[in-house]
Amino acid sequence: MIQTQTKTVKDPRITLVGAGPGDTDLITLKGIKALKTADVVLYDALVNEELLEFAPETATKVYVGKRSGDHSFSQDNINKLMIDYALNYGHVVRLKGGDPFVFGRGYEELDYAASYSIPATVIPGISSSIGVPGLQHIPVTHRGLSESFWVVTGTTSDGKISNDLYEAARTNATIVVLMGIHKLEAITQIFKNEGKNRLPVAVIQSGSTENEKVAVGIIDTIVELVEEKQISSPALIVIGEVVSLHPAYQPIKEFYDIIAQE
Amino acid sequence: MIQTQTKTVKDPRITLVGAGPGDTDLITLKGIKALKTADVVLYDALVNEELLEFAPETATKVYVGKRSGDHSFSQDNINKLMIDYALNYGHVVRLKGGDPFVFGRGYEELDYAASYSIPATVIPGISSSIGVPGLQHIPVTHRGLSESFWVVTGTTSDGKISNDLYEAARTNATIVVLMGIHKLEAITQIFKNEGKNRLPVAVIQSGSTENEKVAVGIIDTIVELVEEKQISSPALIVIGEVVSLHPAYQPIKEFYDIIAQE
Repeated sequence: MIQTQTKTVKDPRITLVGAGPGDTDLITLKGIKALKTADVVLYDALVNEELLEFAPETATKVYVGKRSGDHSFSQDNINKLMIDYALNYGHVVRLKGGDPFVFGRGYEELDYAASYSIPATVIPGISSSIGVPGLQHIPVTHRGLSESFWVVTGTTSDGKISNDLYEAARTNATIVVLMGIHKLEAITQIFKNEGKNRLPVAVIQSGSTENEKVAVGIIDTIVELVEEKQISSPALIVIGEVVSLHPAYQPIKEFYDIIAQE
Repeated sequence: MIQTQTKTVKDPRITLVGAGPGDTDLITLKGIKALKTADVVLYDALVNEELLEFAPETATKVYVGKRSGDHSFSQDNINKLMIDYALNYGHVVRLKGGDPFVFGRGYEELDYAASYSIPATVIPGISSSIGVPGLQHIPVTHRGLSESFWVVTGTTSDGKISNDLYEAARTNATIVVLMGIHKLEAITQIFKNEGKNRLPVAVIQSGSTENEKVAVGIIDTIVELVEEKQISSPALIVIGEVVSLHPAYQPIKEFYDIIAQE
C-alpha cells in the first residue's frame, strides 16, 4: 500500500463547553483550554463574546444564537453546522451559556455527533440557576430554611410553564425558574393559589454582568417591583425562604414585623 | 494627630470560592485569581489539594475538613479560624468543594464574616449535582424526558433523609441526591413505595477524578450494583428517565424490551 497523501484535515471532534452565566472569569480552566485548541467556535446568544479571545485568532467563530420569536438558527441547523465544521476543520467548540445540560439542549448535540461517530466531550459550566443567586448572596440551600432546590423552566418546548412548577409550588424546596420572566404574573398566581402570597422572591436580570439588576419582594409584590425596575430577559426567578437572607429583604421583614405587632 | 506606625497588617477580607467537583481544571478563572492573592487558604476535605498550588508559596494553607463521625473541625471552629486569619493576615480564601451554597454552609460563613464587618465575596463553583452527571453524559434536563431537576440532601443536619425526597419521588423531576450513598437502600424504598421500581438510576463516585466509578441500573437493582462495584462515599445518586440516555443503560433497556415482547 502506498501512502502518497499527507493528512491535511484534522480528526473531527466536538467539545460542548459551558461558558457560565456571563462574567468571562466564570468559565472553567478546562473550558479555556478547550477554546485554545479550537478550530471553530459555535457560540450562543447568552455567551459573553469576550470569551472568543481565548480561541486562536485563526479559529472560525460563528454566532448561532436563537432569539425567541426569531429563530435564525434552529437546533437542526446548529447540529448540522457543528458536524460540517468538525468534518472540514477539526475541533469544534460548542460554547453554550451556563451549563450545557441545564435547558441547554446539550444532549441533542451529543446525540447528533454520535450519529456521525464524531467523538464528543462535555465540559460543565457554572449554571446561572445556582451561581447567579449565589453572587447575590442568596444560598439555594441553607440550614433551617431549605434542604433542597428545584430548577424548573418557565418556557417548555411548547411555550408553556412547566407542569413541574405547579408541583414545586406545593413544596418547601427553593425554586429557581429559568426563562420565566415573561410569565412572571402567571407564575406568581400559581403560588397565590397555594396561599403562599408572602413567600420571598427575587428576580435577577443578567446576573454576574455589568447589566445585573435585582428585585427582591414577595409573591404579592414582585410583579410590580419588576415593572418598576424595568427588569427584563435574560432573568431568573428565585422563590423560597432563602431569599429572606438577601439584604434588600430586611425592610420587607421589618414591615411585616410591625404589622404583626399591631 | 501623629501617625508613627506604617500599616503592616492588610485589610481583612474573605472570599468563598467553589472549587468544583474534583478535577482541578474545573475551577473557574475567577477562583484561580482569588487564590493567587490569598494570604491564607482554608480548604475542605473534598477539595483537590493540587489547587493550593495556585496560591502564593508564602500563603498559609490550612486543612479544615470535617469527616463524618470525626468532626475535627466544627463549623464554629471554621468560622472563628476564618475571622482570626483575616484579622491577622488579610485575604482569606475559603476553598470549598463544589459550589459554596449547595449544602456547603456557605451562607453561615458569610453571615459570620458580616458580624465582624469583614467584607466577604462569593465565587460560584461547578456543583457536582449538575457537573458530575454531565461529565457522564447524563443531562439533568432533556426535552421529552425532564423539564426540571431537584437537588436534595440525603443527610440533613439531624442525620436523616430530607423530607423533600419523599415529595420528590412523586414528581417527574430528575432527582439528584447528594450525601445519600449510605442511605441508598432507604432511598430506593421511597421510590418503590411510589411504584417506581423500574425508574433508571445512576450512582457516581468521585466524579471528574481518576477514582470515578459509575453504576447504572434501576431502582430495583441499584443497591446490588453499587455493592458489586464497591462504590462508596463521596458519591451522588441521579434518579430519573434522563439516566436511560447513559450508554450503560442500553442493555437494561433491551432486557425489558425482550420481556415486554414475551
